[in-house]
Amino acid sequence: MNSKETTRVVIVGAGFGGLNAARALASAPVQITVIDRKNHHTFQPLLYQVATAGLSPGEIAAPIRSILRRYKNAEVLMDEVTGFDLDCRVVETPDQCVPYDYLIVAAGARHAYFGHDDWEPLAPGLKTIEDALEIRRRVLLAFELAERQAAAGETSKPLNFIVVGAGPTGVELAGTLAEISRHALAHEFRSIDPKSAHVLLLEGGPRVLPAYSEDLSHSAREQLQHLGVEVLTSTVVTRIEPGTVHIGDTHMDAAIVLWAAGVAASPLGKELSAPTDRAGRVFVRPDLSVPGHPEVFVIGDLAALKDEHGKMLPGVAPVAMQQGRFVAKLIRQELESVGAPPFSRPSREGGDLDSRPKFHYWDKGSLATIGRAAAVAEFGKIHISGFLAWLAWLFIHIMYLVGFRNRLLVLIQWAWSYLTYQRGARLITGSTYLPGWTEGLPDQERAVSVPSENPATTRK
Amino acid sequence: MNSKETTRVVIVGAGFGGLNAARALASAPVQITVIDRKNHHTFQPLLYQVATAGLSPGEIAAPIRSILRRYKNAEVLMDEVTGFDLDCRVVETPDQCVPYDYLIVAAGARHAYFGHDDWEPLAPGLKTIEDALEIRRRVLLAFELAERQAAAGETSKPLNFIVVGAGPTGVELAGTLAEISRHALAHEFRSIDPKSAHVLLLEGGPRVLPAYSEDLSHSAREQLQHLGVEVLTSTVVTRIEPGTVHIGDTHMDAAIVLWAAGVAASPLGKELSAPTDRAGRVFVRPDLSVPGHPEVFVIGDLAALKDEHGKMLPGVAPVAMQQGRFVAKLIRQELESVGAPPFSRPSREGGDLDSRPKFHYWDKGSLATIGRAAAVAEFGKIHISGFLAWLAWLFIHIMYLVGFRNRLLVLIQWAWSYLTYQRGARLITGSTYLPGWTEGLPDQERAVSVPSENPATTRK
Repeated sequence: MNSKETTRVVIVGAGFGGLNAARALASAPVQITVIDRKNHHTFQPLLYQVATAGLSPGEIAAPIRSILRRYKNAEVLMDEVTGFDLDCRVVETPDQCVPYDYLIVAAGARHAYFGHDDWEPLAPGLKTIEDALEIRRRVLLAFELAERQAAAGETSKPLNFIVVGAGPTGVELAGTLAEISRHALAHEFRSIDPKSAHVLLLEGGPRVLPAYSEDLSHSAREQLQHLGVEVLTSTVVTRIEPGTVHIGDTHMDAAIVLWAAGVAASPLGKELSAPTDRAGRVFVRPDLSVPGHPEVFVIGDLAALKDEHGKMLPGVAPVAMQQGRFVAKLIRQELESVGAPPFSRPSREGGDLDSRPKFHYWDKGSLATIGRAAAVAEFGKIHISGFLAWLAWLFIHIMYLVGFRNRLLVLIQWAWSYLTYQRGARLITGSTYLPGWTEGLPDQERAVSVPSENPATTRK
Repeated sequence: MNSKETTRVVIVGAGFGGLNAARALASAPVQITVIDRKNHHTFQPLLYQVATAGLSPGEIAAPIRSILRRYKNAEVLMDEVTGFDLDCRVVETPDQCVPYDYLIVAAGARHAYFGHDDWEPLAPGLKTIEDALEIRRRVLLAFELAERQAAAGETSKPLNFIVVGAGPTGVELAGTLAEISRHALAHEFRSIDPKSAHVLLLEGGPRVLPAYSEDLSHSAREQLQHLGVEVLTSTVVTRIEPGTVHIGDTHMDAAIVLWAAGVAASPLGKELSAPTDRAGRVFVRPDLSVPGHPEVFVIGDLAALKDEHGKMLPGVAPVAMQQGRFVAKLIRQELESVGAPPFSRPSREGGDLDSRPKFHYWDKGSLATIGRAAAVAEFGKIHISGFLAWLAWLFIHIMYLVGFRNRLLVLIQWAWSYLTYQRGARLITGSTYLPGWTEGLPDQERAVSVPSENPATTRK
């Protein structure tokens, strides 16, 4: 129908998947529209550094517009996608309908509470910059409130920092929190000893970093304990209340609780009228398209696809990036071969799908950082732990960081904090209320609460 | 009464005045307690850079604890001072009473709306990091909403950025906003032209930068106009509504309104049972003490004191810093001469005030920046404009920045944005609602609203 017009490719979500698709389409004869609920791309692998005051938000996030500014055929809309009309091929937002010939949905995932959404205000997760700032606020505020209570002669409650979930994010948070209390804050308080802070990492499963091999899980646990983290595996949280975490019949005091126990795909997956798995991820065809809609692709955390060994692809950046580039290439090839989106022609409705390539994930290996000079790395048969793994992790992540400026600044920041044990961004902004603490500051400020439901278009 | 105990000096507010007092007392035989409502010192002269996305909050703010960590006789309490008991010599906070022998009140000022506090949500001022982030949010969001309206085919409202008040802050904001729209954002939008943004600077008085000499006001106005700012002097805002600013019978559309028109001293001034001026500043004695309470000092924006020419000292950082050091020195001398705070002895109640030195402000000159390579500087008879003045401003401010790390980062940031016209911290976080815009994003996030009343202990 619009074989004469330029082909319109709409990309929902500017995470690793969406951005890589957009870049790979930049020189193609298409009009790209990237829609995201935020104005910035967030480098999620370093979000925990913002949450732990090591980096400023501006250092791990960049405006989507700047990233794509050179690509004249790409426009960016800061808007919220509410649904799709797959028959009319339009993306729906509250105040407009954006038509597409090809649609790439890369809306990512958010953290999930397994039906306990009421826990979220008490145990924030870590998916967005706002999440990170809220966690930073709570962590720093807990020390300040404890100091004030001690100075006032009150017996301060035990400074227990409880992290729920020992996947990569939980491990990063626990390890870094232990470091902060042991080093960064060590000599700055007079009435309390930050070292007395107690970091607990609770994991429902039998081992930390379950996605990694047994030996690395074991090594990660040892490195965590070396940092002063108490690791409790096979420990399932049954209830969270202000200041308390319940584990079956027992319970423990909690200065703050952080949630790293589960993710759920963006609700947008449900809008694609395609089968989804329990986590809400869309079962895609081998070409990453949605069954029955060859012009619609789902990539990244929102896509459910098994590799050749029947193992579900993990929700990590490399998968999303490779999928973004794969879909972009596929679209370019179809446009070159037929000159226009084949699926806009009724005659070929459904398209020649069998001729389409299948996505194969090239697994370069996985890395998880634990703390200063502590990490684990798995490159196929090669398993590394400790300083070397951390160097590999550091190098890869800095190199991947979006934009020269950020990379340079982040490098300086880290060099600095590595040498001095300092944390660069220890600001408490917003509300001074902390759930579970009998008193916060009288909150004259309108409480700065942080998004509890993560945005529909949360991305990697 | 406690001549045997260590003398207790309580400092309220960790702005330039409070911090300099604390530092200058570090090696004295006193126990220092710094109480602040925030955990961080804010380098206010660069706050406008955060508001205009040039710097991240972490780059112009540092935790008070880190700044004072080396001073073992100094403790920091993050708490809100609610009042004083001058007879019993205790500082009152919601959950404790902090006794003092000497009290230094450096609680600073906040912006004021001259009885129109209902304007604050519509026209935020710039005194805290939260203020700056809220302004940044609004500025960036205005462009995004305009782009979205244009992309949806709606006629977007004129992008008028209205800054009320042409003091240093208003001039900085207006100049920088003009630069952003002309350079930083120039090529990143597809449906709107950021250059079409129109920055208006409204001043009730006859000229911009009224505190400066006529010729520099004139030069500043020219530099502003050169940057594309429309300057309207003798223009008094009579009403502010969502999306509209009223000036007498006329009115203008406003995409966003920023308030830089007036300051009021911290409400804590009223708690000192001493005479205050219209702005709520405490009339202090020549030694900066409160009449009738030689052990209580008021410094910085909260103090009202005339110089030898009968001219009221301006509310700028150098005044506060010199006053902080002056009071610290005075206290040290009294302790050396009598070994204990003289005023804790009934026999000498009132003390030998006439022997006390008088504070003299050493005016090194004043600088106001307007934009990239645009500024005015007044060093006594020497008046400079443009690039040279800007260099002087840049150098002085970077040198003053608290902490090596910040200084280095800020230098890099600025070098970078100077070379590339980029802004480093263009993140929209929190709510996506903008007053006066018919539609914001449907705000699934709990709105992140920013303190409207500024904290009682807002400081320089």
